[in-house]
Amino acid sequence: MSATSTKPLAERSFECFKVEIRDKIAHIQLSRPEKMNAMNRAFWHELPEIVQAIDDGALARVIVISSTGKHFTAGMDLSVFTSGPDVKGAETGRVRANLMKTVLKLQKTFGCLDEARIPVLMAVQGGCIGGGVDFASACDMRYCTKDAFFCIQEINIGMTADVGTFPRLPHLMPQGLVRELAYTGRRLFADEAKSCGLVNQVFDTQEQMLEGVLAIAREIAARSPLAVHGSKEMLNYARDHTIEDGLRQIAVWQTGMFQPHDMMESFTAKAEKREPNFDDLLPVKDAI
Amino acid sequence: MSATSTKPLAERSFECFKVEIRDKIAHIQLSRPEKMNAMNRAFWHELPEIVQAIDDGALARVIVISSTGKHFTAGMDLSVFTSGPDVKGAETGRVRANLMKTVLKLQKTFGCLDEARIPVLMAVQGGCIGGGVDFASACDMRYCTKDAFFCIQEINIGMTADVGTFPRLPHLMPQGLVRELAYTGRRLFADEAKSCGLVNQVFDTQEQMLEGVLAIAREIAARSPLAVHGSKEMLNYARDHTIEDGLRQIAVWQTGMFQPHDMMESFTAKAEKREPNFDDLLPVKDAI
Amino acid sequence: MSATSTKPLAERSFECFKVEIRDKIAHIQLSRPEKMNAMNRAFWHELPEIVQAIDDGALARVIVISSTGKHFTAGMDLSVFTSGPDVKGAETGRVRANLMKTVLKLQKTFGCLDEARIPVLMAVQGGCIGGGVDFASACDMRYCTKDAFFCIQEINIGMTADVGTFPRLPHLMPQGLVRELAYTGRRLFADEAKSCGLVNQVFDTQEQMLEGVLAIAREIAARSPLAVHGSKEMLNYARDHTIEDGLRQIAVWQTGMFQPHDMMESFTAKAEKREPNFDDLLPVKDAI
Amino acid sequence: MSATSTKPLAERSFECFKVEIRDKIAHIQLSRPEKMNAMNRAFWHELPEIVQAIDDGALARVIVISSTGKHFTAGMDLSVFTSGPDVKGAETGRVRANLMKTVLKLQKTFGCLDEARIPVLMAVQGGCIGGGVDFASACDMRYCTKDAFFCIQEINIGMTADVGTFPRLPHLMPQGLVRELAYTGRRLFADEAKSCGLVNQVFDTQEQMLEGVLAIAREIAARSPLAVHGSKEMLNYARDHTIEDGLRQIAVWQTGMFQPHDMMESFTAKAEKREPNFDDLLPVKDAI
Amino acid sequence: MSATSTKPLAERSFECFKVEIRDKIAHIQLSRPEKMNAMNRAFWHELPEIVQAIDDGALARVIVISSTGKHFTAGMDLSVFTSGPDVKGAETGRVRANLMKTVLKLQKTFGCLDEARIPVLMAVQGGCIGGGVDFASACDMRYCTKDAFFCIQEINIGMTADVGTFPRLPHLMPQGLVRELAYTGRRLFADEAKSCGLVNQVFDTQEQMLEGVLAIAREIAARSPLAVHGSKEMLNYARDHTIEDGLRQIAVWQTGMFQPHDMMESFTAKAEKREPNFDDLLPVKDAI
Amino acid sequence: MSATSTKPLAERSFECFKVEIRDKIAHIQLSRPEKMNAMNRAFWHELPEIVQAIDDGALARVIVISSTGKHFTAGMDLSVFTSGPDVKGAETGRVRANLMKTVLKLQKTFGCLDEARIPVLMAVQGGCIGGGVDFASACDMRYCTKDAFFCIQEINIGMTADVGTFPRLPHLMPQGLVRELAYTGRRLFADEAKSCGLVNQVFDTQEQMLEGVLAIAREIAARSPLAVHGSKEMLNYARDHTIEDGLRQIAVWQTGMFQPHDMMESFTAKAEKREPNFDDLLPVKDAI
Repeated sequence: MSATSTKPLAERSFECFKVEIRDKIAHIQLSRPEKMNAMNRAFWHELPEIVQAIDDGALARVIVISSTGKHFTAGMDLSVFTSGPDVKGAETGRVRANLMKTVLKLQKTFGCLDEARIPVLMAVQGGCIGGGVDFASACDMRYCTKDAFFCIQEINIGMTADVGTFPRLPHLMPQGLVRELAYTGRRLFADEAKSCGLVNQVFDTQEQMLEGVLAIAREIAARSPLAVHGSKEMLNYARDHTIEDGLRQIAVWQTGMFQPHDMMESFTAKAEKREPNFDDLLPVKDAI
Repeated sequence: MSATSTKPLAERSFECFKVEIRDKIAHIQLSRPEKMNAMNRAFWHELPEIVQAIDDGALARVIVISSTGKHFTAGMDLSVFTSGPDVKGAETGRVRANLMKTVLKLQKTFGCLDEARIPVLMAVQGGCIGGGVDFASACDMRYCTKDAFFCIQEINIGMTADVGTFPRLPHLMPQGLVRELAYTGRRLFADEAKSCGLVNQVFDTQEQMLEGVLAIAREIAARSPLAVHGSKEMLNYARDHTIEDGLRQIAVWQTGMFQPHDMMESFTAKAEKREPNFDDLLPVKDAI
Repeated sequence: MSATSTKPLAERSFECFKVEIRDKIAHIQLSRPEKMNAMNRAFWHELPEIVQAIDDGALARVIVISSTGKHFTAGMDLSVFTSGPDVKGAETGRVRANLMKTVLKLQKTFGCLDEARIPVLMAVQGGCIGGGVDFASACDMRYCTKDAFFCIQEINIGMTADVGTFPRLPHLMPQGLVRELAYTGRRLFADEAKSCGLVNQVFDTQEQMLEGVLAIAREIAARSPLAVHGSKEMLNYARDHTIEDGLRQIAVWQTGMFQPHDMMESFTAKAEKREPNFDDLLPVKDAI
Repeated sequence: MSATSTKPLAERSFECFKVEIRDKIAHIQLSRPEKMNAMNRAFWHELPEIVQAIDDGALARVIVISSTGKHFTAGMDLSVFTSGPDVKGAETGRVRANLMKTVLKLQKTFGCLDEARIPVLMAVQGGCIGGGVDFASACDMRYCTKDAFFCIQEINIGMTADVGTFPRLPHLMPQGLVRELAYTGRRLFADEAKSCGLVNQVFDTQEQMLEGVLAIAREIAARSPLAVHGSKEMLNYARDHTIEDGLRQIAVWQTGMFQPHDMMESFTAKAEKREPNFDDLLPVKDAI
Repeated sequence: MSATSTKPLAERSFECFKVEIRDKIAHIQLSRPEKMNAMNRAFWHELPEIVQAIDDGALARVIVISSTGKHFTAGMDLSVFTSGPDVKGAETGRVRANLMKTVLKLQKTFGCLDEARIPVLMAVQGGCIGGGVDFASACDMRYCTKDAFFCIQEINIGMTADVGTFPRLPHLMPQGLVRELAYTGRRLFADEAKSCGLVNQVFDTQEQMLEGVLAIAREIAARSPLAVHGSKEMLNYARDHTIEDGLRQIAVWQTGMFQPHDMMESFTAKAEKREPNFDDLLPVKDAI
Repeated sequence: MSATSTKPLAERSFECFKVEIRDKIAHIQLSRPEKMNAMNRAFWHELPEIVQAIDDGALARVIVISSTGKHFTAGMDLSVFTSGPDVKGAETGRVRANLMKTVLKLQKTFGCLDEARIPVLMAVQGGCIGGGVDFASACDMRYCTKDAFFCIQEINIGMTADVGTFPRLPHLMPQGLVRELAYTGRRLFADEAKSCGLVNQVFDTQEQMLEGVLAIAREIAARSPLAVHGSKEMLNYARDHTIEDGLRQIAVWQTGMFQPHDMMESFTAKAEKREPNFDDLLPVKDAI
């Protein structure tokens, strides 16, 4: 990954995020600790922009998302609710139809994490609240510090969570516990998050967590990016399809993707007692 | 919840249940401990009647189901098998087609728990056996005492469980363990039920359990009933649909249900340092 | 199970397996410890042949699969990749279409475990690597020794797992952990495999494991084979369908299968203080 | 079908319908021609009541629905929109949640046609308008007079059809034409309705239509009611499932329903040169 | 297609079929006109054997199925019903479970038409009755003579069609008409079969039909077999999946199958004013 | 629709299209007759850009797509195949993974027609070839001149159609005929296209067709745009879901969209003997 190739993204600055790409790992940090990293309007625009730039440009092989300050995120910044277009005087049904479009757009923001060809790891410290849970649910894996907690805050402010928590969370932890969190708005602390499967590992400190998660990310970055891409696609597909369909999808996938090159490289590397050296994915240039 | 509004239900008495509604919590108790709360014919009629009366009438915001005596329930009362209509002499195929209708009806009994707009919490002491597991699987959350156990008893009497255990249980605990229980008929004790995710919490005694579960119920009753209703609907929908479909469903749901009122109340209450005061759901009157 | 009836299978010898049927339990052992029980061409032919012979012939009521030597299996034998038909010179698209058929065939091998009317228990010692995870995922239940580990080895040799791991594994353990294993290729050791739900129980030694798993198998073999068959069918069906569909399927299933005989036998046996004596399933003879 | 057995239903009178049961055919007629058979509140209650009484009681083997006067139905009576419960002053979100329940209830009315074990034939004269199309879409077969027309009237009064037209109509005629009708609100006349497959046959007059449709009904009533029930179930199931699922469902269905009796009777009757004489379905008595 | 390669199949003789392969077209003829080509036990074994031999061996690029005598087929030979294994004395539930297996096997027979990589055209003369409709429904396209008719005969002998008619037929013609045929058992004659879309073309005589259908088969055989294979796969897949899923499936399919070779050949041929010359598919040899 | 509001789009010029918006109808014309309106790179960019500008901006209530010259379109311009990014030297698997992305992008182009809130009518003259069929399949309704024909040209140049024909066409015309077109590449002429349901109406000339289609468009533009939007959403949703799901979706949709305003306006207008005057949809402004 030459410095030049990442320049366009690396040189830019964002209101809500700090982005670093090194050793084929993109590290995206929420960078408004003084606002408890609340998800303001800029957040919703910048996140998909950054993720897509990394993924489409093949700028990294794995993404790590972490945060700064006491809490991962306080969730939706309330300004988002009040800053929509002026629809005063408009007929109610049409205003409502527009609200639907807004929710779909918000959802699409986190959809970019699902659609990225590369895995997304989230490292959570402190509170991961409201929209933060929707965010976390859309990542491939979750890790946290021992002081972390998750909270479906929406129920505490009189609304139904609508940016992804409900479709995604029951795939990540037991249904009965999801419902308790959803109806009571109570906090799920690190230990319980680990034992129920929501997070993969709990670390003592933010530093140890970043070290640990970046070590996992390095493992992933050392694997064949095409094989990792295939694994993610197949897991995403399997989540929403029958076992029969999932099996067939993989069989078709392999017709294009199962090429001898990466496997040969892995065997040669082993024989030569060195690490294999896999090519990056190709940038998704505008082919048409 | 005025005493008057609950009168029709509150004044009635049931063969298998005792029903109390207080502080917007409906407490339904299985009340035939001397028969180990076996599910006799009355059980199958009374349960949906009670749940629907509560839910349609908006008589409470959450339901707690508990039992009395040594065991939660011994499961199906055998009289149910032998008390069907007299079909002696009838052609076998038609008798079999009727059997299908009977099973569908039994299943529908527990379906009322899924379809209620309000959460249903189950508090299990002692044995939860056979039909009891079908029953528990259809609740939103499960809690138990340390002496509790769950048992797919059907396999021990030579039959296949048919009132909901198989479609629902694998959403609540790991598939591999479900199958062990299903094929061997062994008991799943409280500790394992907790660690595998089937129950959310284990209590030392029945009293402590009721106290604990009612405390959780109070938390739920203090939330916006509309937001709780939406959360349950979305979790139910998500269980059977793709993530894409789940997201869309929420976006459409919000067009009608995301109103400023409850959120405003929650913010005002916070500013005024008081508990928010949410309206009940409306009774589902016969609009047509 | 008379010696005679099992003769055809029992008298045969296999390159990769040793098969014993006793007390209605079929014990299939991987028997190439010196090759780390790698899955060579014979493996893929013999496994479905054996399983179908047992199941179609109603030769046993439950299958236990174990292995020998230090590791359960090292996964795919590399000879399989290099021993395909000679397609040199053939047009690429057609070669690729054939690759799809090969993957579908490999998948079908493990499909026989799903389709068997009887439960399949796997007892894992040492490494269960690569194709071994696809294999394990297709069994009903998994048990292991404390030195066992599971490894999605495919990612370590530059390829995407394609024989069933991705569609099946997320039904057996939390999605977030599956993805970590899938992207990093790290080993999942016995303790974690137990706590995440992948295996039901961990044993100290291979001997204790076999004893324990055979005891569970004996429990299953003592149950009504028809009720066990129904339970497996319903769990398989439920895995890929909505709850509504699952309920209906059981209702229809019972029209044929819910007969008084086995239930009567279980009650009579209880009254007579003896073990019930259930008939075997019928062999699936060629009815047309 | 003895007079006695139909008495409870036959002796009753309805506001919107006239019901006659003869020769195992139930003929339900819309009987408010002076109001153009508009669907008022009584309509929505009486229709499911009548259909379920017939079906659950096994009072007939087929239902024919026809109407009186110039038009089959003018659709929803506007009084239905204005006669709901008084929700003035109630919080908007809760009112909206109740609206959802109302729509679901209206839909359920026509659902009874789908769920009946016996076929429902509709004979349409004149206009079949608005709710009439939702109604027609839920029947098994449709027939009409040459002056008949179908009209998705909802779009002409500024609303989206919501009682079943959109999910059901595209199963009955080409999608492109459905959309033209849906967006323009134009009338689909008899000839086009026949050529596009929506109706099976066009008759010159109402009398000829009734004669023709009753003749078809007699054919159905002469078949095995169990085989007809199975055919309807399988067609309903197939509509919403994959081919694979449909095949499996039939295989399971036959385990209970494929009994020798009806087939033997049909062969015996043929040998004896007489019409076969099949038993009615059993009434769905309250088995639990 | 060298004579040698077809030898194993070509040299064999079958009880129910005559098979000819010429010009890359396999012509399978039902050859028991004296028995009205009733589907006896041999039929159910020979059909899949023949189709798979042709398809797996890449012996032809298209299959035409026609019949001999007055009727295409009278449907199931009654001997099939009476010739199953002797289960006298066996417990009813187990006998019923075996019946399910028998139906699944019969269904699988016609499944081979769906699963073949190459299109299957059916040419129907006279009656296509009972199992004949299941058979026809599983082909890619249907053609008939003007004296042909289709009849869901099962209902006329007191049973529910169970070999594929119900899941497949509603994909081929309007639902309302399917139901009339299903419930009344009436005949659908050639003209109506054409106008409703079930058959693509009606011919005056059997000779003209064979000539016409073979001409269409020749068109298909002149196309790229890989592109035809892909088109069939995608149509099969689309039938049972959402549009979104169908689109994705094609995108993945093309990664392996969209190779320049066939397209180049088609352009070169055009430039050289000759017919393109495409390679056959590869035989599906046993790769593992 | 004031001239001003359409300015940004109206003032632009496109390489492949001419766009006119008048009377709330957007008329998009393919404008490269000298190139037979082949779909070059500009086509794939401009079409979604135009459709989204119209739909998001609420610039019109219906879209009519027509073409110029002898043929509607010759399909994909071959330059698209040869103008992709330079991937020479890149590893095959990665090149193939990129090809998948390209196909998905092409598909997304036509997806904009599905996703538009407003109906899209296509008016076809002459040949509608290859990609033209994918295009036509994604429109709401199709009309054509009597000299028009449709041709799945991909099969004639050795490839499998991949931009939407296969998932969408079987929803629009009988499956058996789709397959004949798909495998033979023959032309489907106007008369057959009408009788099979693919097109709604055939016109003698291009002028008469435009007049006729614009008249239909005017009917649509005079209806409530919100009700039309709802109808399209519900038909799209129903296409890919069960009837049960479709019914529920409408019930939820109505909670936000069923407002009294448009219905009141339609009744008032009728009483006042004038055309109703409905508000436009709101532009989908960037709410976040």
